[in-house]
Amino acid sequence: MALIVHKYGGTSMGSTERITNVAKRVAKWVRAGHQLVVVPSAMSGETNRLLALAKELAPSHPTDSTQRELDALAATGEQASSALLAIALQAQGVQSVSYAGWQVPIKTNSAYTKARIESIDDVRIRADLNAGKVVVITGFQGVDAQGHITTLGRGGSDTSAVAVAAALKAHECLIYTDVDGVYTTDPRVVPQARRLSTVSFEEMLEMASLGSKVLQIRSVEFAGKYKVKLRVLSSFTPWDIDLATEAESGTLITFEEDEQMEQAVVSGIAFNRDEAKISVLGVPDKPGIAYQILGAVADANIEVDMIIQNTGKGGLTDFSFTVHRNDYARALELLKTKVLPDLGAKEVNGDDRICKVSIVGIGMRSHVGIASKMFRSLSEEGINIQMISTSEIKTSVVIDEKYMELAVRALHKVFGLDQTAA
Amino acid sequence: MALIVHKYGGTSMGSTERITNVAKRVAKWVRAGHQLVVVPSAMSGETNRLLALAKELAPSHPTDSTQRELDALAATGEQASSALLAIALQAQGVQSVSYAGWQVPIKTNSAYTKARIESIDDVRIRADLNAGKVVVITGFQGVDAQGHITTLGRGGSDTSAVAVAAALKAHECLIYTDVDGVYTTDPRVVPQARRLSTVSFEEMLEMASLGSKVLQIRSVEFAGKYKVKLRVLSSFTPWDIDLATEAESGTLITFEEDEQMEQAVVSGIAFNRDEAKISVLGVPDKPGIAYQILGAVADANIEVDMIIQNTGKGGLTDFSFTVHRNDYARALELLKTKVLPDLGAKEVNGDDRICKVSIVGIGMRSHVGIASKMFRSLSEEGINIQMISTSEIKTSVVIDEKYMELAVRALHKVFGLDQTAA
Repeated sequence: MALIVHKYGGTSMGSTERITNVAKRVAKWVRAGHQLVVVPSAMSGETNRLLALAKELAPSHPTDSTQRELDALAATGEQASSALLAIALQAQGVQSVSYAGWQVPIKTNSAYTKARIESIDDVRIRADLNAGKVVVITGFQGVDAQGHITTLGRGGSDTSAVAVAAALKAHECLIYTDVDGVYTTDPRVVPQARRLSTVSFEEMLEMASLGSKVLQIRSVEFAGKYKVKLRVLSSFTPWDIDLATEAESGTLITFEEDEQMEQAVVSGIAFNRDEAKISVLGVPDKPGIAYQILGAVADANIEVDMIIQNTGKGGLTDFSFTVHRNDYARALELLKTKVLPDLGAKEVNGDDRICKVSIVGIGMRSHVGIASKMFRSLSEEGINIQMISTSEIKTSVVIDEKYMELAVRALHKVFGLDQTAA
Repeated sequence: MALIVHKYGGTSMGSTERITNVAKRVAKWVRAGHQLVVVPSAMSGETNRLLALAKELAPSHPTDSTQRELDALAATGEQASSALLAIALQAQGVQSVSYAGWQVPIKTNSAYTKARIESIDDVRIRADLNAGKVVVITGFQGVDAQGHITTLGRGGSDTSAVAVAAALKAHECLIYTDVDGVYTTDPRVVPQARRLSTVSFEEMLEMASLGSKVLQIRSVEFAGKYKVKLRVLSSFTPWDIDLATEAESGTLITFEEDEQMEQAVVSGIAFNRDEAKISVLGVPDKPGIAYQILGAVADANIEVDMIIQNTGKGGLTDFSFTVHRNDYARALELLKTKVLPDLGAKEVNGDDRICKVSIVGIGMRSHVGIASKMFRSLSEEGINIQMISTSEIKTSVVIDEKYMELAVRALHKVFGLDQTAA
C-alpha cells in the first residue's frame, strides 16, 4: 500500500464522461490497496470562460484589487471540477471528499494571480485518508494569511499536486495529461520523436523553461526541492488497463543519476518561437552598461531571456538580448527613446522573426565537443547562428525562424534521438 | 448616510451587461453617501448548469456525502458572480471586495442543500465599509462548524441578504428582482392586478407560502424575526433614475400596522396548482387516526400542506390532505398498500387536477363575513369548493384546476383589488 497523488489536467476533466473515466481510473488504484489524493484542474475552457467575463467588465489593466477578484473568480473552476470528481467517485462506490485550497489549507503568499505556496497542512487530508476516503484537492489555488483566495498562475495545478505530494511525503506524484510522456522533441515537428522513459530533473527543468509545455516549470522546481518522484503519463489510455502497466508508463523524472536508464548525451531538442532579439550596437565598453540597459527594461516589467555581450574592441561593444515577442515593440521603443540617448550607443536594432533551438542533456557535463557538433550540423544545413548561450546541460542558439523545423529535425537526427524503425 | 443591503437575483446578474448595470446602480447609492453591502445570486442558469453536470455523474438519489459535494459545487456560482460584480464596481471607480460565505463567515448548521444560518460575523464587513468599500457577499451559502461549504436551498440568496441586513442592523434591505414589487395577484392571470406599495409582514408570509414566488418564505420569516425593513423592487428600471424615486419604488414589507397605508381587507389573491389531494374515506373515528395516516406519509419524506378532517358520523369519518403534485403517485400508493390495510378504512382516492386559491389580508382579523363573501363569489361563478382551510389572515379553498383563472379573477374583482382605469 502506498500513498499516491494523481493530477488530472483540464482536458482529462473536459466532460462528465471524462470525469467518470478519471473516477474509474482512481477507483482502480484504490481497489489495488493504495491511498489516493487527486488534484484536478478546472474543466477545459472553464478558466478562460470566467476570465473572459471579467475582461468584458474591466477591459483595462487590472489593479491589485481586481487581481484579488480575478483569483476568487478563477478559483471557482477547480472548486467545481473537484466537487464533480468527488461525486463521480462516490457513484463508483468510492468514499471521497473534496476540499478547496482554503479548506486544506494550502497557504500561499498574497501575490494574486501568481501566488507561491508557503505551507500545506496535512492533518485533514491524513484523517480522511485514514478513514478510507479519496481526498480530492482543488489545483491552482490557495489562501493567504488574511484569508483571501489566491491562484498560482497558469498551469499551477501541476505545482499544487507536487506540493501536496511533498507535504504528504507521497510515494509518487502522477501527472495525467493529454500526452503520454516527455518526448525527445515535439512530435508535431519531428515525427521520429521518441518518448523518454526517464528524464533527469535537471533536463526536465531546462526543457520546461525552454518551451516544452508538458509540465509547468515551477512544479518541476518544487519536485526537485522536495525530491518528489514525478511521472508524466496519459489519461487517455483505457481506464481499465493493467495497473502495473499504467504505473510504469509515461516518463519518470529522476533525481539520482544512476536511476538514469538512457545514457544518451543529448536527451532532447527544445525550441521556442515566442522570442525576439534586440541589439544595442557600439556601446562604450565601460562598467555599468549592462545594468543601464537591462535596468530600464526590468523597470518596464519586461522579462529578458538570453543576454549576450561580446568582448569589445576600440572601446566599443555590442550588447544583445531576447524578450518575449509580445514585449518586442515596447522594449525597442523604450531603448530608442529612453536608453540610447543617455548611453551614447550608436544604434539599436532588433528582429522578431527569430527562434531559439536548444539541445538538452545531462550527459553534456561529461562529454566534450557536443556544442561544436551542434554548430557543425547547423552549418551543414546552411543555417546562420545569430546568438549562442550555454549552461552546464544545454546549448541554445538563436536562428532565423524560417529554419526552425529544419534545425530541430537535423539536430534530432545527429544526436541519435530518432526512433529506430520497428 | 445609511447602511443599505442590496440583493440582486440571477436574472439581474444574467450577463456582463446586466452586471455592469448593477454596478452602476450600486455606485449611484454609494455616491449619494450610503454604505453598501451587495448580495448577488449566481448568473441565471448557472446553478442549474452545475447541478445538471452532477446529475449526469450520479443520477440516483444523492447520499449525504454527495450532498456535501453538491453544495461545494453549487456555491461556485455565487462566488463567481460576486467576484464579477466586485470587478464591475471597480471598473466604475468604486472600491469593492467580494467574500464567499466562509470568508465572512456566515455560519450555518450542517444540513447540506438546505442549511440554516446560525450566525454572521460582522467584523470583516464593518472594517471594509469603514474603509469606504462596497462589500459583495455571496448569497445562498455559508460554512458549517467543521469548515464544510453549505447552501441554503433554492432562493436562499434572499435569506442571505436579510440575514446580513439583520447582522449589520442595516437601515433597509432592498431585494432587486425581475418584477417591480408584490402584486395583488399574478398579473399574468389577472391583467388588472395592482402593485402594492406596502404589504404587512404576515400577509407577505402567507403569500410566499401560498405560491407567490417573489420572495423566499424563509427570508420573510427572517425579516420578521429580526425586524428587517424589506423592500422588493425592480432591477430593470434604468440604473440612473432618481435615487429618491428608486428608494420609494416597489413594495415595502411593513411590521407595524400603522405603517400600513392601504387598509384593504383583502390584500391579495394567491394561487397554486402544484398540489394534489388525497382522501381516506370511511376511517374509524378514533384517537390516533391522523397520526397513523400522516406519520407514514412523513416517514416517506412527503410534505403535507392542507389537512382536513370532518366530524364523523356513525363512527366513521373522512380524512383529506394535499401534497405536492410530484409526490402524489407515491403518496397514493403508500396509503393503498401500507396504511389502508392496518387502518380498516373503506377507500383511498385522490385527484391531482386541483388547485388552491387563497385570499390573504391582515384586515380579515377585524372584519367578519370575508370568507362567506369568498364562497358566495365562487358559487356565483358555479365553482364547486372541495376543501376549505383558514388561518387568522387567509382563507384557502381547493377547487378543480380548470376553474383557477376564473376564480382568481372573480375574487380579485369582488374584493376591490382591480386597478382603477386611468
